[in-house]
Amino acid sequence: MAPCGEKSEGAISSIVIIIAMQTEAMPLVHKLELEEDLDSPFPKGVPWVRYHGAYKDLHISIIWPGKDSALGVDSVGTISSSLVTYAAIQALKPDLIINAGTAGGFKAKGASIGDVFLASEVAFHDRRIPIPVFDLYGVGLRQVFSTPNLLKELNLKIGKLSTGDSLDMTPQDEASITANDASVKDMEGAAIAYVTDLLKVPAIFVKAVTDVVDGDKPTAEEFMENLVAVTTALGQAVTQVIDFINGKCLSEL
Amino acid sequence: MAPCGEKSEGAISSIVIIIAMQTEAMPLVHKLELEEDLDSPFPKGVPWVRYHGAYKDLHISIIWPGKDSALGVDSVGTISSSLVTYAAIQALKPDLIINAGTAGGFKAKGASIGDVFLASEVAFHDRRIPIPVFDLYGVGLRQVFSTPNLLKELNLKIGKLSTGDSLDMTPQDEASITANDASVKDMEGAAIAYVTDLLKVPAIFVKAVTDVVDGDKPTAEEFMENLVAVTTALGQAVTQVIDFINGKCLSEL
Repeated sequence: MAPCGEKSEGAISSIVIIIAMQTEAMPLVHKLELEEDLDSPFPKGVPWVRYHGAYKDLHISIIWPGKDSALGVDSVGTISSSLVTYAAIQALKPDLIINAGTAGGFKAKGASIGDVFLASEVAFHDRRIPIPVFDLYGVGLRQVFSTPNLLKELNLKIGKLSTGDSLDMTPQDEASITANDASVKDMEGAAIAYVTDLLKVPAIFVKAVTDVVDGDKPTAEEFMENLVAVTTALGQAVTQVIDFINGKCLSEL
Repeated sequence: MAPCGEKSEGAISSIVIIIAMQTEAMPLVHKLELEEDLDSPFPKGVPWVRYHGAYKDLHISIIWPGKDSALGVDSVGTISSSLVTYAAIQALKPDLIINAGTAGGFKAKGASIGDVFLASEVAFHDRRIPIPVFDLYGVGLRQVFSTPNLLKELNLKIGKLSTGDSLDMTPQDEASITANDASVKDMEGAAIAYVTDLLKVPAIFVKAVTDVVDGDKPTAEEFMENLVAVTTALGQAVTQVIDFINGKCLSEL
Protein backbone atom coordinates (compact mmCIF):
# COMPACT_ATOMS: atom_id res chain seq x y z
CA MET A 1 0.00 0.00 0.00
CA ALA A 2 1.17 3.49 -0.82
CA PRO A 3 1.80 5.68 2.20
CA CYS A 4 -0.72 8.45 2.71
CA GLY A 5 -1.37 11.27 5.17
CA GLU A 6 1.25 13.38 6.92
CA LYS A 7 2.71 10.59 9.03
CA SER A 8 4.20 7.60 7.25
CA GLU A 9 0.82 5.99 7.75
CA GLY A 10 -0.25 3.28 5.28
CA ALA A 11 -3.66 2.84 3.72
CA ILE A 12 -6.02 0.61 5.68
CA SER A 13 -5.55 -2.95 4.50
CA SER A 14 -7.35 -5.18 6.96
CA ILE A 15 -10.84 -4.80 8.44
CA VAL A 16 -12.69 -7.02 10.90
CA ILE A 17 -16.48 -6.64 10.95
CA ILE A 18 -18.20 -8.01 14.07
CA ILE A 19 -21.86 -8.97 13.49
CA ALA A 20 -23.89 -10.71 16.22
CA MET A 21 -26.62 -12.41 14.18
CA GLN A 22 -26.40 -14.65 11.12
CA THR A 23 -29.40 -12.86 9.53
CA GLU A 24 -27.50 -9.58 9.86
CA ALA A 25 -24.25 -11.05 8.52
CA MET A 26 -25.32 -13.01 5.45
CA PRO A 27 -26.42 -10.16 3.11
CA LEU A 28 -22.97 -8.63 3.58
CA VAL A 29 -21.14 -11.96 3.25
CA HIS A 30 -22.84 -12.48 -0.12
CA LYS A 31 -22.44 -8.88 -1.29
CA LEU A 32 -18.69 -8.88 -0.55
CA GLU A 33 -18.34 -12.45 -1.88
CA LEU A 34 -16.63 -13.66 1.28
CA GLU A 35 -16.10 -17.32 2.06
CA GLU A 36 -16.23 -19.19 5.34
CA ASP A 37 -12.79 -19.86 6.82
CA LEU A 38 -12.77 -23.61 7.36
CA ASP A 39 -9.37 -23.39 9.07
CA SER A 40 -10.58 -20.96 11.71
CA PRO A 41 -8.06 -19.04 13.85
CA PHE A 42 -10.27 -19.62 16.92
CA PRO A 43 -9.97 -22.38 19.55
CA LYS A 44 -11.56 -25.77 18.93
CA GLY A 45 -15.12 -26.08 20.12
CA VAL A 46 -16.15 -22.41 19.98
CA PRO A 47 -19.04 -21.70 17.57
CA TRP A 48 -17.42 -18.53 16.22
CA VAL A 49 -17.47 -18.23 12.42
CA ARG A 50 -15.17 -16.21 10.20
CA TYR A 51 -16.07 -15.26 6.62
CA HIS A 52 -13.24 -13.62 4.74
CA GLY A 53 -11.84 -12.60 1.40
CA ALA A 54 -10.29 -9.82 -0.66
CA TYR A 55 -12.57 -6.94 -1.59
CA LYS A 56 -10.99 -4.19 -3.69
CA ASP A 57 -7.69 -3.34 -1.89
CA LEU A 58 -8.90 -4.65 1.46
CA HIS A 59 -8.80 -7.93 3.28
CA ILE A 60 -12.11 -8.27 5.05
CA SER A 61 -13.19 -10.67 7.79
CA ILE A 62 -16.74 -10.86 9.07
CA ILE A 63 -16.83 -12.51 12.49
CA TRP A 64 -20.13 -13.92 13.68
CA PRO A 65 -20.15 -15.46 17.20
CA GLY A 66 -22.20 -18.35 15.83
CA LYS A 67 -25.07 -20.34 17.26
CA ASP A 68 -25.08 -21.23 20.94
CA SER A 69 -24.09 -24.88 20.93
CA ALA A 70 -26.72 -25.93 23.47
CA LEU A 71 -29.65 -23.78 22.32
CA GLY A 72 -29.04 -23.13 18.62
CA VAL A 73 -29.73 -19.38 18.71
CA ASP A 74 -27.28 -16.62 17.74
CA SER A 75 -24.77 -15.85 20.49
CA VAL A 76 -25.92 -12.25 20.94
CA GLY A 77 -24.97 -9.83 23.72
CA THR A 78 -21.95 -8.30 25.33
CA ILE A 79 -20.04 -11.37 26.52
CA SER A 80 -19.77 -13.31 23.27
CA SER A 81 -19.16 -10.13 21.25
CA SER A 82 -16.35 -9.13 23.66
CA LEU A 83 -14.77 -12.55 23.35
CA VAL A 84 -14.84 -12.66 19.53
CA THR A 85 -13.53 -9.10 19.31
CA TYR A 86 -10.63 -10.00 21.59
CA ALA A 87 -9.88 -13.25 19.77
CA ALA A 88 -10.19 -11.66 16.32
CA ILE A 89 -7.82 -8.81 17.21
CA GLN A 90 -5.30 -11.27 18.64
CA ALA A 91 -5.48 -13.56 15.60
CA LEU A 92 -5.95 -11.09 12.74
CA LYS A 93 -4.44 -7.78 13.94
CA PRO A 94 -6.87 -5.65 11.90
CA ASP A 95 -6.32 -1.95 11.14
CA LEU A 96 -9.97 -1.19 11.90
CA ILE A 97 -12.97 -2.88 13.57
CA ILE A 98 -16.50 -2.24 12.33
CA ASN A 99 -19.39 -3.39 14.51
CA ALA A 100 -22.48 -3.63 12.32
CA GLY A 101 -25.91 -4.67 13.46
CA THR A 102 -29.50 -3.84 14.12
CA ALA A 103 -30.67 -1.61 16.94
CA GLY A 104 -33.70 -0.10 18.57
CA GLY A 105 -34.16 3.59 17.76
CA PHE A 106 -35.76 6.44 19.68
CA LYS A 107 -38.20 8.55 17.65
CA ALA A 108 -37.73 11.31 20.24
CA LYS A 109 -34.14 11.47 18.93
CA GLY A 110 -35.18 11.37 15.26
CA ALA A 111 -34.85 7.63 14.58
CA SER A 112 -37.17 5.74 12.19
CA ILE A 113 -37.32 2.11 11.02
CA GLY A 114 -34.60 1.46 8.43
CA ASP A 115 -32.41 4.44 9.42
CA VAL A 116 -28.70 3.69 9.54
CA PHE A 117 -26.75 5.40 12.34
CA LEU A 118 -23.06 5.89 12.85
CA ALA A 119 -22.34 6.05 16.61
CA SER A 120 -20.58 9.14 17.93
CA GLU A 121 -20.07 7.57 21.36
CA VAL A 122 -21.11 4.43 23.20
CA ALA A 123 -22.07 3.62 26.81
CA PHE A 124 -23.83 0.92 28.84
CA HIS A 125 -27.29 1.33 30.35
CA ASP A 126 -27.51 -1.81 32.50
CA ARG A 127 -24.38 -1.66 34.66
CA ARG A 128 -25.39 0.31 37.74
CA ILE A 129 -22.68 0.38 40.43
CA PRO A 130 -23.64 3.13 42.91
CA ILE A 131 -20.15 3.61 44.41
CA PRO A 132 -18.14 6.71 43.39
CA VAL A 133 -15.97 6.13 40.27
CA PHE A 134 -17.31 2.56 39.94
CA ASP A 135 -20.50 4.25 38.71
CA LEU A 136 -18.55 5.78 35.80
CA TYR A 137 -16.82 2.47 35.11
CA GLY A 138 -20.27 0.84 34.87
CA VAL A 139 -21.53 3.41 32.38
CA GLY A 140 -18.35 2.90 30.37
CA LEU A 141 -18.77 5.97 28.16
CA ARG A 142 -16.37 5.91 25.23
CA GLN A 143 -15.79 8.15 22.24
CA VAL A 144 -15.51 6.03 19.13
CA PHE A 145 -12.98 6.55 16.36
CA SER A 146 -13.90 9.82 14.64
CA THR A 147 -14.74 9.63 10.93
CA PRO A 148 -15.96 13.10 9.89
CA ASN A 149 -15.31 12.61 6.16
CA LEU A 150 -17.09 9.27 6.03
CA LEU A 151 -20.06 10.78 7.84
CA LYS A 152 -20.26 13.75 5.41
CA GLU A 153 -19.81 11.64 2.29
CA LEU A 154 -22.36 8.93 3.10
CA ASN A 155 -25.02 11.09 4.68
CA LEU A 156 -25.63 8.65 7.51
CA LYS A 157 -27.38 9.73 10.69
CA ILE A 158 -25.15 10.24 13.72
CA GLY A 159 -26.15 9.53 17.30
CA LYS A 160 -25.10 8.09 20.60
CA LEU A 161 -25.39 4.33 21.12
CA SER A 162 -26.39 2.72 24.43
CA THR A 163 -25.76 -0.98 25.07
CA GLY A 164 -27.36 -3.53 27.37
CA ASP A 165 -27.88 -7.30 27.45
CA SER A 166 -31.67 -7.16 27.31
CA LEU A 167 -33.91 -6.66 24.30
CA ASP A 168 -36.56 -4.99 26.43
CA MET A 169 -36.18 -1.80 28.50
CA THR A 170 -36.95 -1.38 32.21
CA PRO A 171 -37.62 2.04 33.77
CA GLN A 172 -34.03 1.95 35.16
CA ASP A 173 -32.65 1.13 31.69
CA GLU A 174 -34.70 3.97 30.24
CA ALA A 175 -33.34 6.46 32.80
CA SER A 176 -29.78 5.37 31.96
CA ILE A 177 -30.43 5.55 28.20
CA THR A 178 -31.77 9.09 28.68
CA ALA A 179 -28.70 9.96 30.77
CA ASN A 180 -26.56 8.51 27.95
CA ASP A 181 -28.49 10.77 25.50
CA ALA A 182 -28.79 7.78 23.16
CA SER A 183 -30.49 7.75 19.76
CA VAL A 184 -30.10 3.99 19.37
CA LYS A 185 -29.79 0.99 21.71
CA ASP A 186 -28.17 -2.34 20.96
CA MET A 187 -26.79 -5.39 22.78
CA GLU A 188 -23.09 -5.35 21.78
CA GLY A 189 -21.63 -1.95 20.88
CA ALA A 190 -20.19 -0.66 24.17
CA ALA A 191 -18.74 -4.10 24.95
CA ILE A 192 -16.91 -4.21 21.62
CA ALA A 193 -15.71 -0.63 22.25
CA TYR A 194 -14.36 -1.73 25.66
CA VAL A 195 -12.22 -4.40 24.00
CA THR A 196 -11.04 -2.27 21.07
CA ASP A 197 -10.10 0.46 23.55
CA LEU A 198 -8.19 -2.06 25.69
CA LEU A 199 -6.24 -3.30 22.67
CA LYS A 200 -5.94 0.12 20.98
CA VAL A 201 -7.67 -0.74 17.71
CA PRO A 202 -9.87 1.98 16.13
CA ALA A 203 -13.52 0.97 15.89
CA ILE A 204 -16.69 2.34 14.31
CA PHE A 205 -20.30 1.32 14.87
CA VAL A 206 -22.96 1.10 12.13
CA LYS A 207 -26.46 0.43 13.45
CA ALA A 208 -29.69 0.00 11.46
CA VAL A 209 -33.00 0.59 13.22
CA THR A 210 -35.36 -2.44 13.34
CA ASP A 211 -37.75 -1.11 15.95
CA VAL A 212 -38.85 2.16 17.52
CA VAL A 213 -38.39 1.69 21.25
CA ASP A 214 -40.54 4.69 22.20
CA GLY A 215 -43.25 3.72 19.69
CA ASP A 216 -46.47 1.74 20.02
CA LYS A 217 -45.41 -1.80 19.11
CA PRO A 218 -43.69 -4.24 21.46
CA THR A 219 -39.95 -4.35 20.68
CA ALA A 220 -39.64 -8.13 20.19
CA GLU A 221 -42.54 -8.22 17.69
CA GLU A 222 -41.38 -5.19 15.71
CA PHE A 223 -37.78 -6.47 15.73
CA MET A 224 -38.78 -9.83 14.22
CA GLU A 225 -41.05 -8.14 11.63
CA ASN A 226 -38.38 -5.79 10.31
CA LEU A 227 -35.20 -7.81 10.80
CA VAL A 228 -34.82 -9.17 7.26
CA ALA A 229 -35.71 -5.94 5.41
CA VAL A 230 -33.52 -3.79 7.66
CA THR A 231 -30.51 -6.11 7.34
CA THR A 232 -30.59 -5.45 3.59
CA ALA A 233 -30.33 -1.71 4.29
CA LEU A 234 -27.57 -2.44 6.81
CA GLY A 235 -25.65 -4.51 4.24
CA GLN A 236 -25.88 -1.67 1.70
CA ALA A 237 -24.71 0.92 4.23
CA VAL A 238 -21.76 -1.17 5.39
CA THR A 239 -20.75 -1.78 1.75
CA GLN A 240 -20.79 2.00 1.18
CA VAL A 241 -18.67 2.47 4.30
CA ILE A 242 -16.16 -0.10 3.06
CA ASP A 243 -16.08 1.42 -0.45
CA PHE A 244 -15.31 4.78 1.17
CA ILE A 245 -12.56 3.30 3.35
CA ASN A 246 -10.88 1.50 0.45
CA GLY A 247 -7.56 3.13 -0.41
CA LYS A 248 -7.68 5.59 2.51
CA CYS A 249 -5.64 5.97 5.69
CA LEU A 250 -7.28 6.08 9.12
CA SER A 251 -6.59 9.81 9.29
CA GLU A 252 -8.55 10.36 6.07
CA LEU A 253 -11.75 8.86 7.43
CA MET B 1 1.65 -36.94 39.19
CA ALA B 2 0.49 -40.47 39.97
CA PRO B 3 -2.59 -41.54 38.04
CA CYS B 4 -5.74 -41.84 40.11
CA GLY B 5 -9.36 -42.77 39.61
CA GLU B 6 -10.70 -45.40 37.25
CA LYS B 7 -9.65 -43.72 34.02
CA SER B 8 -5.99 -43.00 33.49
CA GLU B 9 -6.74 -39.54 34.86
CA GLY B 10 -3.89 -37.65 36.54
CA ALA B 11 -4.08 -35.63 39.73
CA ILE B 12 -4.97 -31.98 39.26
CA SER B 13 -1.77 -30.02 38.75
CA SER B 14 -2.76 -26.56 37.56
CA ILE B 15 -5.45 -24.23 38.90
CA VAL B 16 -6.46 -20.75 37.74
CA ILE B 17 -8.36 -18.65 40.28
CA ILE B 18 -10.28 -15.68 38.81
CA ILE B 19 -10.86 -12.86 41.33
CA ALA B 20 -12.41 -9.56 40.24
CA MET B 21 -11.18 -7.19 42.98
CA GLN B 22 -7.71 -6.59 44.36
CA THR B 23 -9.08 -6.46 47.92
CA GLU B 24 -10.53 -9.94 47.39
CA ALA B 25 -7.34 -11.28 45.79
CA MET B 26 -4.58 -10.07 48.09
CA PRO B 27 -5.30 -12.12 51.25
CA LEU B 28 -5.09 -15.26 49.12
CA VAL B 29 -2.01 -14.07 47.20
CA HIS B 30 -0.22 -13.61 50.54
CA LYS B 31 -1.53 -16.81 52.13
CA LEU B 32 -0.41 -18.95 49.17
CA GLU B 33 2.85 -16.94 48.86
CA LEU B 34 2.29 -16.22 45.17
CA GLU B 35 4.30 -13.67 43.23
CA GLU B 36 3.28 -11.30 40.49
CA ASP B 37 4.19 -12.56 37.01
CA LEU B 38 6.19 -9.69 35.55
CA ASP B 39 6.42 -11.48 32.19
CA SER B 40 2.64 -11.72 31.81
CA PRO B 41 1.14 -14.09 29.22
CA PHE B 42 -1.44 -11.41 28.33
CA PRO B 43 -1.32 -8.83 25.50
CA LYS B 44 0.52 -5.55 26.00
CA GLY B 45 -1.61 -2.77 27.40
CA VAL B 46 -4.23 -4.82 29.23
CA PRO B 47 -4.34 -4.22 33.01
CA TRP B 48 -4.77 -7.95 33.80
CA VAL B 49 -2.49 -9.19 36.58
CA ARG B 50 -1.32 -12.75 37.22
CA TYR B 51 0.04 -13.88 40.59
CA HIS B 52 1.44 -17.39 40.56
CA GLY B 53 3.58 -19.96 42.27
CA ALA B 54 3.84 -23.53 43.50
CA TYR B 55 1.68 -24.46 46.48
CA LYS B 56 2.00 -28.05 47.71
CA ASP B 57 1.71 -30.21 44.54
CA LEU B 58 -0.16 -27.55 42.59
CA HIS B 59 0.74 -24.71 40.31
CA ILE B 60 -1.62 -21.88 41.12
CA SER B 61 -2.37 -18.68 39.21
CA ILE B 62 -4.60 -15.96 40.56
CA ILE B 63 -5.84 -13.74 37.74
CA TRP B 64 -7.14 -10.32 38.66
CA PRO B 65 -8.47 -8.17 35.76
CA GLY B 66 -6.63 -5.18 37.24
CA LYS B 67 -7.56 -1.54 37.54
CA ASP B 68 -9.41 0.18 34.71
CA SER B 69 -6.68 2.20 33.03
CA ALA B 70 -8.81 5.34 32.66
CA LEU B 71 -10.66 5.29 36.00
CA GLY B 72 -8.41 3.36 38.38
CA VAL B 73 -11.11 1.11 39.83
CA ASP B 74 -11.16 -2.71 39.70
CA SER B 75 -12.36 -4.05 36.35
CA VAL B 76 -15.39 -5.82 37.81
CA GLY B 77 -18.31 -7.38 35.96
CA THR B 78 -19.03 -9.91 33.27
CA ILE B 79 -17.07 -8.53 30.32
CA SER B 80 -13.62 -8.23 31.87
CA SER B 81 -14.04 -11.50 33.78
CA SER B 82 -15.03 -13.28 30.55
CA LEU B 83 -12.00 -11.88 28.78
CA VAL B 84 -9.48 -12.84 31.46
CA THR B 85 -11.01 -16.31 31.79
CA TYR B 86 -10.70 -16.81 28.03
CA ALA B 87 -7.15 -15.46 27.89
CA ALA B 88 -6.03 -17.40 30.99
CA ILE B 89 -7.37 -20.70 29.63
CA GLN B 90 -5.67 -20.08 26.26
CA ALA B 91 -2.35 -19.17 27.88
CA LEU B 92 -2.23 -21.49 30.89
CA LYS B 93 -4.45 -24.50 30.02
CA PRO B 94 -5.47 -25.10 33.64
CA ASP B 95 -7.06 -28.34 34.87
CA LEU B 96 -9.59 -26.40 36.92
CA ILE B 97 -10.91 -22.84 37.23
CA ILE B 98 -12.02 -21.42 40.58
CA ASN B 99 -13.95 -18.17 40.61
CA ALA B 100 -13.69 -16.69 44.10
CA GLY B 101 -15.27 -13.46 45.22
CA THR B 102 -17.74 -11.63 47.35
CA ALA B 103 -21.48 -11.69 46.76
CA GLY B 104 -24.79 -10.43 48.02
CA GLY B 105 -26.77 -13.05 49.94
CA PHE B 106 -30.50 -13.56 50.47
CA LYS B 107 -31.51 -14.14 54.07
CA ALA B 108 -34.73 -15.71 52.74
CA LYS B 109 -32.45 -18.43 51.35
CA GLY B 110 -30.44 -18.76 54.58
CA ALA B 111 -27.52 -16.46 53.78
CA SER B 112 -25.76 -14.32 56.43
CA ILE B 113 -22.79 -11.94 56.32
CA GLY B 114 -19.53 -13.91 56.18
CA ASP B 115 -21.11 -17.15 54.88
CA VAL B 116 -19.14 -18.89 52.17
CA PHE B 117 -21.20 -20.55 49.44
CA LEU B 118 -20.24 -23.08 46.82
CA ALA B 119 -22.50 -22.58 43.77
CA SER B 120 -24.53 -25.55 42.56
CA GLU B 121 -25.58 -23.73 39.38
CA VAL B 122 -25.26 -20.28 37.86
CA ALA B 123 -27.51 -18.06 35.72
CA PHE B 124 -27.89 -14.42 34.67
CA HIS B 125 -30.61 -12.12 35.99
CA ASP B 126 -30.16 -9.09 33.71
CA ARG B 127 -30.31 -10.54 30.20
CA ARG B 128 -33.99 -10.46 29.25
CA ILE B 129 -34.63 -11.43 25.62
CA PRO B 130 -38.37 -12.12 25.29
CA ILE B 131 -38.17 -14.23 22.11
CA PRO B 132 -38.57 -18.03 22.39
CA VAL B 133 -35.25 -19.86 23.01
CA PHE B 134 -33.35 -16.52 23.11
CA ASP B 135 -34.99 -16.10 26.52
CA LEU B 136 -33.21 -19.27 27.74
CA TYR B 137 -29.95 -18.12 26.14
CA GLY B 138 -30.27 -14.87 28.08
CA VAL B 139 -30.78 -16.66 31.40
CA GLY B 140 -27.78 -18.87 30.59
CA LEU B 141 -28.45 -21.44 33.31
CA ARG B 142 -25.48 -23.75 33.77
CA GLN B 143 -24.68 -26.59 36.13
CA VAL B 144 -21.22 -26.11 37.54
CA PHE B 145 -18.65 -28.87 37.99
CA SER B 146 -19.96 -31.15 40.72
CA THR B 147 -17.78 -31.55 43.83
CA PRO B 148 -19.81 -33.62 46.34
CA ASN B 149 -16.78 -34.73 48.40
CA LEU B 150 -15.38 -31.23 48.69
CA LEU B 151 -18.78 -29.95 49.79
CA LYS B 152 -19.13 -32.65 52.46
CA GLU B 153 -15.57 -32.30 53.76
CA LEU B 154 -15.51 -28.51 54.07
CA ASN B 155 -19.02 -27.96 55.34
CA LEU B 156 -19.60 -24.99 53.02
CA LYS B 157 -23.10 -23.79 52.25
CA ILE B 158 -24.43 -24.68 48.82
CA GLY B 159 -26.76 -22.52 46.76
CA LYS B 160 -27.56 -21.18 43.33
CA LEU B 161 -25.67 -18.13 42.08
CA SER B 162 -27.23 -15.39 39.95
CA THR B 163 -25.06 -12.91 38.03
CA GLY B 164 -25.66 -9.39 36.73
CA ASP B 165 -23.58 -6.32 35.92
CA SER B 166 -25.21 -4.08 38.54
CA LEU B 167 -24.51 -3.90 42.26
CA ASP B 168 -28.08 -2.85 42.97
CA MET B 169 -31.26 -4.80 42.18
CA THR B 170 -34.26 -3.57 40.20
CA PRO B 171 -37.72 -5.18 40.52
CA GLN B 172 -37.04 -6.97 37.19
CA ASP B 173 -33.68 -8.23 38.49
CA GLU B 174 -35.38 -9.43 41.66
CA ALA B 175 -38.02 -11.34 39.67
CA SER B 176 -35.27 -13.03 37.64
CA ILE B 177 -33.21 -13.82 40.75
CA THR B 178 -36.31 -15.41 42.30
CA ALA B 179 -36.90 -17.38 39.09
CA ASN B 180 -33.25 -18.47 39.25
CA ASP B 181 -33.89 -19.60 42.88
CA ALA B 182 -30.62 -17.91 43.85
CA SER B 183 -29.11 -17.80 47.35
CA VAL B 184 -26.34 -15.42 46.28
CA LYS B 185 -25.85 -12.77 43.59
CA ASP B 186 -22.58 -11.59 42.10
CA MET B 187 -21.27 -9.72 39.06
CA GLU B 188 -19.06 -12.34 37.36
CA GLY B 189 -19.96 -16.00 38.00
CA ALA B 190 -22.31 -16.88 35.13
CA ALA B 191 -20.05 -15.07 32.65
CA ILE B 192 -17.02 -17.09 33.77
CA ALA B 193 -19.16 -20.27 33.57
CA TYR B 194 -20.11 -19.33 29.98
CA VAL B 195 -16.45 -19.20 28.98
CA THR B 196 -15.36 -22.33 30.88
CA ASP B 197 -18.29 -24.20 29.30
CA LEU B 198 -17.29 -22.95 25.83
CA LEU B 199 -13.71 -24.12 26.34
CA LYS B 200 -14.62 -27.27 28.29
CA VAL B 201 -12.68 -26.51 31.48
CA PRO B 202 -14.29 -27.55 34.79
CA ALA B 203 -15.08 -24.61 37.06
CA ILE B 204 -16.25 -24.07 40.62
CA PHE B 205 -17.53 -20.91 42.29
CA VAL B 206 -16.74 -19.88 45.88
CA LYS B 207 -18.68 -16.81 47.05
CA ALA B 208 -18.49 -15.05 50.42
CA VAL B 209 -21.43 -12.91 51.52
CA THR B 210 -20.61 -9.19 52.10
CA ASP B 211 -24.17 -7.91 52.22
CA VAL B 212 -27.70 -9.15 52.77
CA VAL B 213 -29.66 -8.03 49.71
CA ASP B 214 -33.08 -8.58 51.30
CA GLY B 215 -31.97 -6.91 54.56
CA ASP B 216 -32.33 -3.37 55.87
CA LYS B 217 -29.07 -1.72 54.82
CA PRO B 218 -28.34 -0.34 51.34
CA THR B 219 -26.17 -2.84 49.42
CA ALA B 220 -23.35 -0.43 48.48
CA GLU B 221 -22.91 0.74 52.10
CA GLU B 222 -23.01 -2.77 53.59
CA PHE B 223 -20.69 -4.08 50.86
CA MET B 224 -18.03 -1.44 51.62
CA GLU B 225 -18.38 -1.99 55.40
CA ASN B 226 -17.84 -5.74 55.24
CA LEU B 227 -15.53 -6.10 52.27
CA VAL B 228 -12.23 -6.40 54.12
CA ALA B 229 -13.44 -8.73 56.92
CA VAL B 230 -15.29 -11.00 54.51
CA THR B 231 -12.35 -11.29 52.11
CA THR B 232 -10.35 -12.79 55.00
CA ALA B 233 -13.05 -15.47 55.40
CA LEU B 234 -13.03 -15.94 51.61
CA GLY B 235 -9.24 -16.38 51.60
CA GLN B 236 -9.47 -19.02 54.33
CA ALA B 237 -12.25 -20.91 52.54
CA VAL B 238 -10.41 -20.90 49.20
CA THR B 239 -7.23 -22.13 50.93
CA GLN B 240 -9.24 -25.02 52.43
CA VAL B 241 -10.67 -25.79 48.99
CA ILE B 242 -7.16 -25.86 47.49
CA ASP B 243 -5.81 -28.01 50.34
CA PHE B 244 -8.64 -30.47 49.68
CA ILE B 245 -7.95 -30.50 45.91
CA ASN B 246 -4.21 -31.06 46.34
CA GLY B 247 -3.25 -34.59 45.26
CA LYS B 248 -6.72 -35.46 43.98
CA CYS B 249 -8.18 -36.08 40.53
CA LEU B 250 -11.19 -34.16 39.21
CA SER B 251 -13.35 -37.26 39.71
CA GLU B 252 -12.43 -37.36 43.42
CA LEU B 253 -13.75 -33.87 44.13
